Amino acid sequence: MQWYEFLTQPQVEQVHEASMWILANVGIDLRYAPALEVMKKGGARIDGERVFLPAGLVEEQIRKAPAEFTLHARDSDFDVVIGGQHMVFTPGYGATFVADLDHGRREGTLNDFENFVKLTDASPYQDICSGMFIEPSDVPHEIRHVQMIYTAMKNSAKPIMGSAMGVQGAMDSIMMASIVFGSQGQLSQKPRMISILCSLTPLVYDERMLGAIMEYARAGQPQLISSLAIAGATSPATLAGTLAVQNAEVLAGIVLAQLIREGTPVVMAGASTNADMHTGALSTGSPEMALNTAATAQMARFYGLPVRGGGAVCDAKYPDAQAAYESMMSLLTARFSGVNFVLHSAGILDSYNCMSYEKFIIDDEMCGMVKRMQKGYDVNPDTLGLDLIREVGPGGHFLDKDHTFDHFRTEFYQPQLSSREDFFSWQASGSRQSVARANKKYKEILETHEAQPLPADVDEDLLKFIEKLT
Amino acid sequence: MQWYEFLTQPQVEQVHEASMWILANVGIDLRYAPALEVMKKGGARIDGERVFLPAGLVEEQIRKAPAEFTLHARDSDFDVVIGGQHMVFTPGYGATFVADLDHGRREGTLNDFENFVKLTDASPYQDICSGMFIEPSDVPHEIRHVQMIYTAMKNSAKPIMGSAMGVQGAMDSIMMASIVFGSQGQLSQKPRMISILCSLTPLVYDERMLGAIMEYARAGQPQLISSLAIAGATSPATLAGTLAVQNAEVLAGIVLAQLIREGTPVVMAGASTNADMHTGALSTGSPEMALNTAATAQMARFYGLPVRGGGAVCDAKYPDAQAAYESMMSLLTARFSGVNFVLHSAGILDSYNCMSYEKFIIDDEMCGMVKRMQKGYDVNPDTLGLDLIREVGPGGHFLDKDHTFDHFRTEFYQPQLSSREDFFSWQASGSRQSVARANKKYKEILETHEAQPLPADVDEDLLKFIEKLT
Repeated sequence: MQWYEFLTQPQVEQVHEASMWILANVGIDLRYAPALEVMKKGGARIDGERVFLPAGLVEEQIRKAPAEFTLHARDSDFDVVIGGQHMVFTPGYGATFVADLDHGRREGTLNDFENFVKLTDASPYQDICSGMFIEPSDVPHEIRHVQMIYTAMKNSAKPIMGSAMGVQGAMDSIMMASIVFGSQGQLSQKPRMISILCSLTPLVYDERMLGAIMEYARAGQPQLISSLAIAGATSPATLAGTLAVQNAEVLAGIVLAQLIREGTPVVMAGASTNADMHTGALSTGSPEMALNTAATAQMARFYGLPVRGGGAVCDAKYPDAQAAYESMMSLLTARFSGVNFVLHSAGILDSYNCMSYEKFIIDDEMCGMVKRMQKGYDVNPDTLGLDLIREVGPGGHFLDKDHTFDHFRTEFYQPQLSSREDFFSWQASGSRQSVARANKKYKEILETHEAQPLPADVDEDLLKFIEKLT
Repeated sequence: MQWYEFLTQPQVEQVHEASMWILANVGIDLRYAPALEVMKKGGARIDGERVFLPAGLVEEQIRKAPAEFTLHARDSDFDVVIGGQHMVFTPGYGATFVADLDHGRREGTLNDFENFVKLTDASPYQDICSGMFIEPSDVPHEIRHVQMIYTAMKNSAKPIMGSAMGVQGAMDSIMMASIVFGSQGQLSQKPRMISILCSLTPLVYDERMLGAIMEYARAGQPQLISSLAIAGATSPATLAGTLAVQNAEVLAGIVLAQLIREGTPVVMAGASTNADMHTGALSTGSPEMALNTAATAQMARFYGLPVRGGGAVCDAKYPDAQAAYESMMSLLTARFSGVNFVLHSAGILDSYNCMSYEKFIIDDEMCGMVKRMQKGYDVNPDTLGLDLIREVGPGGHFLDKDHTFDHFRTEFYQPQLSSREDFFSWQASGSRQSVARANKKYKEILETHEAQPLPADVDEDLLKFIEKLT
């Protein structure tokens, strides 16, 4: 297996050197005293909130992070390996709005959150339950994070994500995980939740993110250490400069995690892209973002780290052709460049603003196609089928052969949404576009899918824990 | 630059050996006596129409084909190199129907053909004018091919394609090219048209294709030697077996072309895919087709030949999300696997049945995005921008910097169709989906685009040539 790589190895090293120069000479602001303390003890020079990291310190700490790790699920059939040749999908994260064909766009609620958990649990292609499909606007701010984690735990047996709401969010997440999965000692042996912690580009981390990074590192829980530099706005309008900034930020976060606990599982997460200079808006459907995904994967391989990038991200406002070509570009680029963790793999619309029910189904089909491609195919005497080719001969056909019946189910992807009937059948059944088919499909899934229930005593303990917070 | 490759090198060699075994032991039917004659003289064993090719003969002839070549245009600014790291786009080929939002689906006419020539000529991303966007149903069958070539020559200064209508189609194409570009001797020095010639899977070539291959080879004009095996129908339901059949067929065609004229420029063209076993139909939007594209590219690199694969192909019946995700999957896979020639790069819908005006515009945007990715980016002191990063510092911004203004226009792709405004602006301007925006756009182009005129005397000579045929 050989990944797509457009940077030469000397260019990768040049970007690494640039990031080392930035961390040593420009520095990075950590707006949280305990994080400054850890960095100082680790050998960094501190000036107020600014931290200057010598290259030796960075390189030494980075080496302590594992190249791959397992994230464990409630049902061990859903355990996933993050790193190596593996690729996992996690649906949209952090949207304010939800939309569907029936009700248009509106603020998300806990019921919407629960619906997306169920769609994720039912999907054959989504691997991890997103920690925040949408902000549930009908839940008081102080307990949103625990309500979301509880809803995810109850409605899905797949791996889950923790809260990024600072020290408290991380501690509550870890407490809830230990109610379900056992003591914190056990948790650190068998990680149970992954969280996404982001820098504030350029070259800042705020208290909330630093607090969470430190708590999760202490508990040995995996983290996506993430940077979203916006070329032309929060980083240079050149993608090389943007990559150097992103890389410096992510490395600083990883150093902090490793200084807290050696071997903390981390993912190098690059979500940088460009600003659209006409509108000033962030563009997530741009080819520049896809290029950054491929480049981030090269940097992560250089460091021997798992990598996050891509997603079914788009600038489109409706699940139309634009939404689909932007999302497929980003998903497939992640695949071809060897990305291990794809966040926003289903449902996300209008940059990161909205979760669409129909787009979730459309994107899930894309994820299925990308996973079929990931499987590749075997070349061996049976699959080459030379005897069969001789038997059929020039001008013959293979339709009624045993070899065909033996193989097509495993060899061919079975679409769940795409139309493959002929034009007249399609027309006769209502000329339905993808979005209309997806609307029908998501309702069918919500009506029929049953999650594996939480044990009653665990459920009760979780509810008690939440009650104490309110 | 490193391409995506999922077959190991031993697997590539195994497929090669399988193809050699097929050509030597199963044989291939050539339904055209002059082709049998050439193969016999070249050293093949002939039994009736069946030709058995020893591996030594195949390997020796394949080596004579160039690894890359230039296809010349009426305007030399549009000359293209086919092979190496290059990738050229040629829109949809061979559809029966056309469609747009205003008139729905209908049989194609010469006026539609002309419109697509103009859209191709106007596009910044399409490189070669398709030889048969649609079958012009209003033109008598005998002169369709010359009318299409004339229409392409008159309305576009980009490189063109020749007719695949047997010996006569090829000879007429070559005659018309020499009216515009000079003698046949000059043509063979500076190739002016590329044609697509296909096997009849499994393991047959008909008279029409063989006649054209031989004529074009004599005239030194480049050819896409193409196979479209349908896994489960015309080849085994395993993709390895399908690749072996495709490869055997294409190699046989290339051997014929090289035996006619050593060094004939050829492209290894693999369009194989799978049957959808529920409907029995060919699927062009399948991940299996994308895998075959990537595998074909590996085979072509093994032989040192340029490669064709992929396209904006889809099973969708409407330019909706499905059309877009299938098309982008196929286009981007071509890019990441190092494909040189992408046929069907814009407009094609409903497998190969229909050309859609709106989809042409949507696909052209995708082609622009894929070409932006192809460009990659530079890593150098200016693009890394370390001094600027230090000047801005943690927490600053880059919006008003000279470096930003100097770079964003060349660094960032400018969409021609995609919406990047915010949700409320999009809503205020009519909540238009991609297909509605594309409808407006294609009409604007047809109203405003002016082709570089043919010299009047050349135009007259072409018309006289056509008149003589009727």
